[in-house]
Amino acid sequence: MTETTQVAIIGAGPAGLTLALLLHQAGIESIILENRTRAYVESRVRAGLLEQNTVDLFHELSVADRLKQEGLLHKGVYFSFDGQRQRIPFDELTGGRCITIYGQQEVVKDLIAACLSRGIDIRFESEAFLLEGLETHAPSVIYVENNVQQQLSAQFIAGCDGFHGISRKALPNKLYSSFIKEYPFSWLGILANAKPSSEELIYSYTERGFALHSLRSESVSRLYLQVENNDSVENWPDDRIWEELSKRLHTDGFVLNTGTIFEKTITPMRSFMIDHMQYGRLFLAGDAAHIVPPTGGKGLNLAVADIRWMADAFIDFFQHNREEKLNNYSTNALRRIWRAQDFSNFMTYLFHKQAAHGSFEYHLQKSKFDYIRLSKAYATSIAENYVGLKEV
Amino acid sequence: MTETTQVAIIGAGPAGLTLALLLHQAGIESIILENRTRAYVESRVRAGLLEQNTVDLFHELSVADRLKQEGLLHKGVYFSFDGQRQRIPFDELTGGRCITIYGQQEVVKDLIAACLSRGIDIRFESEAFLLEGLETHAPSVIYVENNVQQQLSAQFIAGCDGFHGISRKALPNKLYSSFIKEYPFSWLGILANAKPSSEELIYSYTERGFALHSLRSESVSRLYLQVENNDSVENWPDDRIWEELSKRLHTDGFVLNTGTIFEKTITPMRSFMIDHMQYGRLFLAGDAAHIVPPTGGKGLNLAVADIRWMADAFIDFFQHNREEKLNNYSTNALRRIWRAQDFSNFMTYLFHKQAAHGSFEYHLQKSKFDYIRLSKAYATSIAENYVGLKEV
Repeated sequence: MTETTQVAIIGAGPAGLTLALLLHQAGIESIILENRTRAYVESRVRAGLLEQNTVDLFHELSVADRLKQEGLLHKGVYFSFDGQRQRIPFDELTGGRCITIYGQQEVVKDLIAACLSRGIDIRFESEAFLLEGLETHAPSVIYVENNVQQQLSAQFIAGCDGFHGISRKALPNKLYSSFIKEYPFSWLGILANAKPSSEELIYSYTERGFALHSLRSESVSRLYLQVENNDSVENWPDDRIWEELSKRLHTDGFVLNTGTIFEKTITPMRSFMIDHMQYGRLFLAGDAAHIVPPTGGKGLNLAVADIRWMADAFIDFFQHNREEKLNNYSTNALRRIWRAQDFSNFMTYLFHKQAAHGSFEYHLQKSKFDYIRLSKAYATSIAENYVGLKEV
Repeated sequence: MTETTQVAIIGAGPAGLTLALLLHQAGIESIILENRTRAYVESRVRAGLLEQNTVDLFHELSVADRLKQEGLLHKGVYFSFDGQRQRIPFDELTGGRCITIYGQQEVVKDLIAACLSRGIDIRFESEAFLLEGLETHAPSVIYVENNVQQQLSAQFIAGCDGFHGISRKALPNKLYSSFIKEYPFSWLGILANAKPSSEELIYSYTERGFALHSLRSESVSRLYLQVENNDSVENWPDDRIWEELSKRLHTDGFVLNTGTIFEKTITPMRSFMIDHMQYGRLFLAGDAAHIVPPTGGKGLNLAVADIRWMADAFIDFFQHNREEKLNNYSTNALRRIWRAQDFSNFMTYLFHKQAAHGSFEYHLQKSKFDYIRLSKAYATSIAENYVGLKEV
């Protein structure tokens, strides 16, 4: 059976759902194909840091009621180096811009609810496995739903299906270069039923390695430790994790709240990029096209930023029959993505232990922390990247 | 024969001469021992970029008459990337601070003239070869003048004798760690009788490598090319140099003025540091303790900044019998030196070709240039380091 829509969206993550809502607002029809169940995508733990731009867009889409109530507005962040802590006041440095802590799974719940209430068609457990006719004006997605093969024909296909999805693989190899950078360390991340020990995030460099104190809500802490790439969670019983976090987050007067750990994973740190995000009528967004190390909290926000450009290009095409924005999509989106890659790379090397304590590289790292304390311009540059640049 | 003075200074470069003048201003006697001739040190071509702090100090010392007349005040610098040029306006971004182009040999001439006219004792062709009694209150320098061994006894010894001097070697090895970072490229530098092709400096990244357009006066250009570490000046006939400079400095409308090349050298790029600059009554300054890659133009300026701290410490001791500043000298000086190492390292990696054109690293470099154009904070942070931070 062949169905037809204006835009076929592969993937019901933040990118795909946001695109469907933006298109719907402009009167453009789309269908979202998602290979997982609704319950699965609504409980998948991912990022939890929303830039000002992302929050603003969710407000524009009128999907921010719960975010406004339950999200935690952070006007600053703490940076620690060798036990010395300083605060970067985002709002003061960037004219009032801030970040909001709100789990990605909560974002997804809100976006799905909004889509469904607005009549947007989301097909869960529908696995796209082939893209056809990308060079034509009527590309289509072949997918399987309830063990039956289906075809969805559209004017555009939006590949929002993540790093492991099929969309990127549908781009001819000759069209683009891809880049992988593996960092020489990983993150051991935990979720714990523990009241956050700080209202704001703490990034901390110590001789023992990096630690990050983050949170998901007023009763759930999200904490990370730099570990070796070949390390395993079996080496990290709960007691060892709390002890290590306590040492790496220590400053005078700081008390680490502990609690039951209910998730424990080790994630490698890597950057992935392709330098072209569109082929014919297929447009990629989010993790399908790029992965940034989590140090700057940019992943979800970049996906949403891609979608702003993509929706704008589709809308301009459908409403005014103009192709210029379609042609510029890749170039426009890539500027912010490379900026975020560079910032994430900077944050990663700023905070992780890479070289011996007291080495040349250590002293350069330390000098940057001293300089942040000294220079409003430098602190501002970090703050404006962290909350998300208005325009790139 | 043993002579006595308050401060024995080894080396008549910018550091040693500035120290003698600052001490003289405070009524403290010093003798400078310099192993070269006056003519040699007055013609030795080195740096040519003076930070605002350095210019200010020379004014305070009343040695800036000729500098004021002949020095070229630069209120900005050009950064090029792949042929796209942007200007960093120092004065606008830093509240009026600027750099001044004035050759190090001119600085040395002015400082020597001032020293001699003020009765400061400079012993040229006097080669220090041994330091004694550094742990006592009466250390001394053993040196040779006119083939006769002499002894100069003092309350302090200032080691301003450069990277190859004897002072650093007099520090017990256990006292400090040293660091060397060799960069994977060198600079081919020329001096040419050519009218500068731009009023301000141009730093330029291209696919062919880095180039720097600088100048020494209104009729002398100073130009640099990134070359391989194992390259030799024999591989670079004049024509090839001009052709390569022309390609690497190209932008629309830019014309490279050429002329007779009268100096041509290849210099490796390296950073050198020690993490402790004092032992007993011996205090080090300038190249004796640290080398920065030339990309940020920091070498001479750091030496002068060291001397500010050192003179202040000596004066406080002689006038008030206080030792606190002596004890803090190393810590105070090292903060600025590490900041300059980090900035020089940043500038070096920002502008040099390190990886293939189009690679991940290339895109991160490009992203930084795009960000400089976009962000006043980022441009300010570069400008304030370039003209010299007021306090570190």
